[in-house]
Amino acid sequence: MKQTLQMVLGLNLREIRISRALSQEQFADLLGFHRTYMGGVERGERNLTLVSLEKIADALAIDPVTLLKPSPANQ
Amino acid sequence: MKQTLQMVLGLNLREIRISRALSQEQFADLLGFHRTYMGGVERGERNLTLVSLEKIADALAIDPVTLLKPSPANQ
Repeated sequence: MKQTLQMVLGLNLREIRISRALSQEQFADLLGFHRTYMGGVERGERNLTLVSLEKIADALAIDPVTLLKPSPANQ
Repeated sequence: MKQTLQMVLGLNLREIRISRALSQEQFADLLGFHRTYMGGVERGERNLTLVSLEKIADALAIDPVTLLKPSPANQ
């Protein structure tokens, strides 16, 4: 099945969060979103806007386009 | 100035539309959006969601991630 952008984004964010040894709550605080919202993003349930995607990428100091590319670890 | 994702998307879509020799109206019809909405997208004024981005990419048979990468023609 083709992965949606929401799913790819969620998997990539979870990978980044774990690589930085952050809890979901710490990660949400860092990004300026509510914990339950970020949980939904990680599960690929949230249809984010481009502005929200940029806000997350800026907070992580990552290129937003990279966040939408399937990670080899998640294939 | 850093280009926003909205601006990059708009420029890329305009480039694709022109390369396919389509009017804004024809392009909007192809993508299933209203002409005035697509005009706003091309001008980088619309904060699209990931689902809308995928819908556009599918209609154009293009990888959605490509649509968010700055095109060399638009630097």
